[in-house]
Amino acid sequence: MPILPLPTTMPTIAPRLRTRICENSRRWFSASYRKQEVLSIHQLPERIRPTYTKRSDSKLLSLQWEQEPRNVMIIRKPGVAAVGDAVVEFAQHLKATYPSTNIILEPTVAANLHYRLPFPVFAIPPPSRSTPFPFTQSTYPRTPHHYQYPRIRPAGYDSEPGEGDGNDGAAAGPESFASVELQTNPYHRKTDILVTLGGDGTILHAASLFSTSRAVPPVLAFAMGTLGFLGEFKWAEYKAAFAALRGSNASSSTTETSPSSTVRVLQRNRLKAGVFGANGERIGGEWGEYEGIEDAHAMNELSIHRGREPHLAILEVYIDSHFLTEAVADGIIVSTPTGSTAYSLSSGGSILHPSVPSLLLTPICPRSLSFRPLVLPEDAKITLKLSERNRGREVEVSVDGRRWGGLGPGQEVRVWLESLAKGSGEGGIPCVKRLGTPSAGDGWVGGLNGLLKFNYPFGEEE
Amino acid sequence: MPILPLPTTMPTIAPRLRTRICENSRRWFSASYRKQEVLSIHQLPERIRPTYTKRSDSKLLSLQWEQEPRNVMIIRKPGVAAVGDAVVEFAQHLKATYPSTNIILEPTVAANLHYRLPFPVFAIPPPSRSTPFPFTQSTYPRTPHHYQYPRIRPAGYDSEPGEGDGNDGAAAGPESFASVELQTNPYHRKTDILVTLGGDGTILHAASLFSTSRAVPPVLAFAMGTLGFLGEFKWAEYKAAFAALRGSNASSSTTETSPSSTVRVLQRNRLKAGVFGANGERIGGEWGEYEGIEDAHAMNELSIHRGREPHLAILEVYIDSHFLTEAVADGIIVSTPTGSTAYSLSSGGSILHPSVPSLLLTPICPRSLSFRPLVLPEDAKITLKLSERNRGREVEVSVDGRRWGGLGPGQEVRVWLESLAKGSGEGGIPCVKRLGTPSAGDGWVGGLNGLLKFNYPFGEEE
Amino acid sequence: MPILPLPTTMPTIAPRLRTRICENSRRWFSASYRKQEVLSIHQLPERIRPTYTKRSDSKLLSLQWEQEPRNVMIIRKPGVAAVGDAVVEFAQHLKATYPSTNIILEPTVAANLHYRLPFPVFAIPPPSRSTPFPFTQSTYPRTPHHYQYPRIRPAGYDSEPGEGDGNDGAAAGPESFASVELQTNPYHRKTDILVTLGGDGTILHAASLFSTSRAVPPVLAFAMGTLGFLGEFKWAEYKAAFAALRGSNASSSTTETSPSSTVRVLQRNRLKAGVFGANGERIGGEWGEYEGIEDAHAMNELSIHRGREPHLAILEVYIDSHFLTEAVADGIIVSTPTGSTAYSLSSGGSILHPSVPSLLLTPICPRSLSFRPLVLPEDAKITLKLSERNRGREVEVSVDGRRWGGLGPGQEVRVWLESLAKGSGEGGIPCVKRLGTPSAGDGWVGGLNGLLKFNYPFGEEE
Amino acid sequence: MPILPLPTTMPTIAPRLRTRICENSRRWFSASYRKQEVLSIHQLPERIRPTYTKRSDSKLLSLQWEQEPRNVMIIRKPGVAAVGDAVVEFAQHLKATYPSTNIILEPTVAANLHYRLPFPVFAIPPPSRSTPFPFTQSTYPRTPHHYQYPRIRPAGYDSEPGEGDGNDGAAAGPESFASVELQTNPYHRKTDILVTLGGDGTILHAASLFSTSRAVPPVLAFAMGTLGFLGEFKWAEYKAAFAALRGSNASSSTTETSPSSTVRVLQRNRLKAGVFGANGERIGGEWGEYEGIEDAHAMNELSIHRGREPHLAILEVYIDSHFLTEAVADGIIVSTPTGSTAYSLSSGGSILHPSVPSLLLTPICPRSLSFRPLVLPEDAKITLKLSERNRGREVEVSVDGRRWGGLGPGQEVRVWLESLAKGSGEGGIPCVKRLGTPSAGDGWVGGLNGLLKFNYPFGEEE
Repeated sequence: MPILPLPTTMPTIAPRLRTRICENSRRWFSASYRKQEVLSIHQLPERIRPTYTKRSDSKLLSLQWEQEPRNVMIIRKPGVAAVGDAVVEFAQHLKATYPSTNIILEPTVAANLHYRLPFPVFAIPPPSRSTPFPFTQSTYPRTPHHYQYPRIRPAGYDSEPGEGDGNDGAAAGPESFASVELQTNPYHRKTDILVTLGGDGTILHAASLFSTSRAVPPVLAFAMGTLGFLGEFKWAEYKAAFAALRGSNASSSTTETSPSSTVRVLQRNRLKAGVFGANGERIGGEWGEYEGIEDAHAMNELSIHRGREPHLAILEVYIDSHFLTEAVADGIIVSTPTGSTAYSLSSGGSILHPSVPSLLLTPICPRSLSFRPLVLPEDAKITLKLSERNRGREVEVSVDGRRWGGLGPGQEVRVWLESLAKGSGEGGIPCVKRLGTPSAGDGWVGGLNGLLKFNYPFGEEE
Repeated sequence: MPILPLPTTMPTIAPRLRTRICENSRRWFSASYRKQEVLSIHQLPERIRPTYTKRSDSKLLSLQWEQEPRNVMIIRKPGVAAVGDAVVEFAQHLKATYPSTNIILEPTVAANLHYRLPFPVFAIPPPSRSTPFPFTQSTYPRTPHHYQYPRIRPAGYDSEPGEGDGNDGAAAGPESFASVELQTNPYHRKTDILVTLGGDGTILHAASLFSTSRAVPPVLAFAMGTLGFLGEFKWAEYKAAFAALRGSNASSSTTETSPSSTVRVLQRNRLKAGVFGANGERIGGEWGEYEGIEDAHAMNELSIHRGREPHLAILEVYIDSHFLTEAVADGIIVSTPTGSTAYSLSSGGSILHPSVPSLLLTPICPRSLSFRPLVLPEDAKITLKLSERNRGREVEVSVDGRRWGGLGPGQEVRVWLESLAKGSGEGGIPCVKRLGTPSAGDGWVGGLNGLLKFNYPFGEEE
Repeated sequence: MPILPLPTTMPTIAPRLRTRICENSRRWFSASYRKQEVLSIHQLPERIRPTYTKRSDSKLLSLQWEQEPRNVMIIRKPGVAAVGDAVVEFAQHLKATYPSTNIILEPTVAANLHYRLPFPVFAIPPPSRSTPFPFTQSTYPRTPHHYQYPRIRPAGYDSEPGEGDGNDGAAAGPESFASVELQTNPYHRKTDILVTLGGDGTILHAASLFSTSRAVPPVLAFAMGTLGFLGEFKWAEYKAAFAALRGSNASSSTTETSPSSTVRVLQRNRLKAGVFGANGERIGGEWGEYEGIEDAHAMNELSIHRGREPHLAILEVYIDSHFLTEAVADGIIVSTPTGSTAYSLSSGGSILHPSVPSLLLTPICPRSLSFRPLVLPEDAKITLKLSERNRGREVEVSVDGRRWGGLGPGQEVRVWLESLAKGSGEGGIPCVKRLGTPSAGDGWVGGLNGLLKFNYPFGEEE
Repeated sequence: MPILPLPTTMPTIAPRLRTRICENSRRWFSASYRKQEVLSIHQLPERIRPTYTKRSDSKLLSLQWEQEPRNVMIIRKPGVAAVGDAVVEFAQHLKATYPSTNIILEPTVAANLHYRLPFPVFAIPPPSRSTPFPFTQSTYPRTPHHYQYPRIRPAGYDSEPGEGDGNDGAAAGPESFASVELQTNPYHRKTDILVTLGGDGTILHAASLFSTSRAVPPVLAFAMGTLGFLGEFKWAEYKAAFAALRGSNASSSTTETSPSSTVRVLQRNRLKAGVFGANGERIGGEWGEYEGIEDAHAMNELSIHRGREPHLAILEVYIDSHFLTEAVADGIIVSTPTGSTAYSLSSGGSILHPSVPSLLLTPICPRSLSFRPLVLPEDAKITLKLSERNRGREVEVSVDGRRWGGLGPGQEVRVWLESLAKGSGEGGIPCVKRLGTPSAGDGWVGGLNGLLKFNYPFGEEE
């Protein structure tokens, strides 16, 4: 069985590890399912989507599966051994309890953990992950990412797709090289359920993998330490929580799912952002391996910062194309309510409950005594234009803390809130909520008090 | 029947003076309409209400009159002569252009201005205005306000004022004492349109006169100086603005009202607040002249403050009956988005656009480094309970800056956002919006830059 | 002469109770020293003052006693039984180790604890304590405190002073009724050493008892719980700490005091404040039982607040007679660096190390986005004048959290930092410092991290 | 007459302009004084220093010249034509009134303006100015600045500039290469008086030219627009102001200087900062063209910032070698009181009067709700150590807004306040104060109200 050679360039993190994977590449990808293997995600059946129903008595949606979900992507917090153990335990439990389950892991996680599992796991073949996605010709040297698609086209490892994988879009021959379908991010195409093991940062990372997807899979988040704002379930609850999510089967007759056990979902809003040139033209190019020109999605915030420029950024702020103010500042943040406890909070913003439909505009170190943070309506279209008078060459644009690109004078970023199509699950990030006892209250309250140490009183104890 | 001349100067509210007016009531109020008179508001026909229609493309409502509005209440900013002149000019214009119009003024305004008008104006007979409305048996001595109703019952002057009824309207027959109708605030029963001439403070005052009304009349606000956050129209526009509001006649056949001239209305949310005792019982009594036990309504905010107590207030904060935090502070503010530029802003709160559906919880000088202001969902039920451990006797509760009463240990204030019944115009304060040119943007932006001097840059000019 | 038993329970300060004590004064106070008695403080020998020497290598002063200190005043934190036990233990230790020691307690403390001690304690005869000291004819009814001296003149209880008590000023006969000496606060005249058992609030209270004294005795502070900013010594150290302070005897020949054991003292600055009328005249009268017109001293801050007035205070701020700004605010705070972690911090002020020579000017909820707190030079003379345009009748002036009086429009408060006469120990509050190991650092750092929970990081743990 | 060629590399700003200077280089530097020429600063006589006397009644020093000052350096604000005109006017006035005066300009200013002056001006031969002075081997590629000295050695134009020598000043004779004297910054060696025409930014720039000098010349600052915090004199006063400064001649017998005209000087503190490696070793190398290893001096602040790193900086803060806290933040600022209205203010710091002896420690966007800015004693030694746990490679260190270098994990910056040797004029920046009328108050108050728009009230006007 001929194995085509793997791509020679393997960018991104953990060079030593990846080197080893390269050496083992012959055993790594295979068309047949065996133990302790990493198979290509392209071999998986296409994604199954749940339906969401708006409930009259709640802001939460009810989730229901028309078909059984199979492909479960597990995202872990890196660097902590116990979390790796939890991934193994969780994957084994899923496979044992629901044999049709397929486990998707990030490539480096797969490389690290697959040998501890008695069944194959699935991953995107290298190169695994888009590098930070520049939207403009920065003056800083950066490796261009054009024409990367061919490197990851599946021909190399599903060379014998013939043994039938029916509805698998990965069954592409070379003729489908330019097919639109293949240009779609395989995570977006394959993942039925997204499970995170870690903290808020892990959920944020998981969300970033779906930042260009309009229909993010339901997210089931387990806190592996302190319960954060976004985390819902304790690790000890993993079996019941997954069972509840998977079993939310409307048409199920065999398993009598009681109505009360129906899973509730909170659609968290995301920001969308596009970059435009001085003449209003769309700026961009290939943003990554799979996408064409696309807007960015942020779960927390988009921020503009002068970075290393010594001069303060001069940014014109428009709301719905009306001039609001000129910010002379280190930068500016546009945040979701969810992000109000992230960078915006560090910059002096208020804390918003995630269900307040709104956008936050928070300045970073403004040269003004009177630039108080603003909270804008959810339908506000915010334009942040780097003034022609800006003295630095360009400012840094970041999405959820990751650099997105450089913005030059006259160019602008447009930011708005992704619209949520209630019912379809399109738009936003559908987060599975824990249905606690009535007295448990809101995870948000726990986050305030537990994570932020909100309102810790000072002075002498009584 | 001789009509004695009215006193020429009727300065301000002062109990002694008002007593004198009472004594002169025979000469003051009259059943026949003549010039330069102040007539009782009770003589006016009952209020006519417009209907409101939700428009799909806008957050604003369309306003339409089934019948012609007649009773126009004009509220002025006190103390500025030019505003008094404007009231006279406006009233004369209305009477000349729409002869069926009746002008309602506040009693002291009526006393001051009626002799400059060639037609009668209407006012509430004295005592004109509720004193601060205590909801609890405060430990501070305060004059109780029980049994004040009889003094203002209309029987004395409405039907047969001529045949003299002692020296006071309080000589009411007992049979009418308990009449429900009479217990209703006459402003609420009579006012078709509420016009304000002044600034945001004037609008706030006008709103406070309807703080216990569930259906506030449409408010047409003219700025007599700097355009504030709430003000909509410039004084120069008064003729066109009133004509547009009055002419929004759905069934009009003679004048074909073009759809574009239909008046748009923004329903501003109000807070509602009730006070409860340590055992959950409703606390209260007579809140004013007309009302029974009622919730308070706030356009801006409800605040609790230690007042003159040397000890910090200890307040337990609950959201939807879940404990959130214990505030040890000078006080705490619950604000509407409209009020985010008022007391909450002084206390460090963010600025919210008035259309963000939410409630602000802002501490006043908390004994904590980490009590950042919170923005809560619009459906949050906030309970502020004075801790039993509070060392002061009671704390002050204020509504829109006016003292409402004292809250003792174990007692609690419950605050929530008034629900808006779209279409009926019930709930909220229907504010007539100026339909400017598309480039005019939002009055909010003007308020930020004009009033707040928002984001005035510091440092050396470029 | 039979001595009637004392009441066993002497709870708290209450006018009625104290009146009763007056009636019983003959039985309460006695000129002969016996067990379980409360004697008049006026019987004690006059105060002995230490000398202070400036050290070239330090900001701290060296303290030395020319004569042995005898009169030790113990101030306790109220309400905690363990602190009462500590007072008893400490007093017994002092009497046993240094038999010449006299224990001074506050009257209610003496009443509560004296029966647990096998020796008499000393207290001011009732009425024990100045009520809040009004400097102006407030519009609020307050009990005037004029001519209160006679009530506390010692005639009643040291009825037999004749058997000579040498240098005791309390040996006053009726003829000395109006003598200036008697008008001096007996705490000021009698206390050699001031010991506090409690927290920062207890030290603050102790300081307030000497707020009109120019030469506060050395303060030895024991923390009975969390170590605060002002507290120096742990309770477990009490024997050694007192021994070191008492033994700092320059002329001691028997005990060769090593230079290293010399006690170090930090003089904490106090604010001084006077009140002046619209024409610059000094406003005042009797401020308390013992004092004439006097400036107030504050260890933490002087604050002006609108209190219960609904209208914001309008205060003109002058620095060294130059107009600085007009504050339209709930109030304003002038704070010492020591007070920077008290009310000023709650109002948004920075945290200053107590040895930064300066004054803080911090607004309370200003109607401005740009009234940032100011830090002024130590020699700044601050004048806070209530504007004639102030709409409320008067504003509240508080010193270290206790109401001082009401300030009317046109009146002003002048505030400046008490000058420290290095060496004499005059001015400021001489606080005995703990000489820890060099690595122990500064108690300030401990206060920041322990009390304020300064810089508690938020977000997910690493 | 041979003209030595100019160096071919001309770093720093304004390439086009500098190109032109290169072309004109033959006429630019000359040994003989002629009109419209730029001569080398090295031809000037050595600097004359004034003496300073502490006055008992003031914080200000008296300045006196032992000899007449001659070399006047004029620093202008760039980019505004009117300021250029003022430089010409001022220089002509000086030359006409005090013929022995020599005018020193920055090279680009000299190149732009010398042809408008009928006498030569003096400048540093190119390269004119140190590029940003790295103290560490940054991981970012930067042009090293070692061995730059030879390029600017004066030999080429100082002794015999005429007879042209190739195309480069680097053709220096080896004998002068190592001369210590030449390694001293010529500005520091030659400037008697430093005059600034511009705003606070111009003064800051002037100060930065003397950032490694221990004895900065007296600074005479003229505001060319809005009076800033640092600016003292209005432009219209330039003749009298300079005459007063120059004429402060102690030994003058001919010109009777009245005591009242003696010039007063405020010594503004500067920060000093050094960089040390993980093992405590001094890190550095050549910091610029003239200096060896040197501490940096800041008039406003030293700041550390993560720059473009996505991860927050983790900085350990020590005061006097005691651990204070760990900052997880975008960065941290150590500021002088003078700098309290600069970057620290943008980051939420208080405003300090420049005469409060202290240091500010202000976090930039900390990941904490409770990291309030701190004000530390003037003798505090602050160490900011980049934690080994810092996830980014290095953080940016800036001095007065200019990048100084990159700091790696384990490395630390030590910051302290330059000690002022009263009388010698060593240390600090001696700023000539304007002695206004007593009612004029403090320029600081003007800066607050004029520049910062301090305490601009919001809300409706009265």
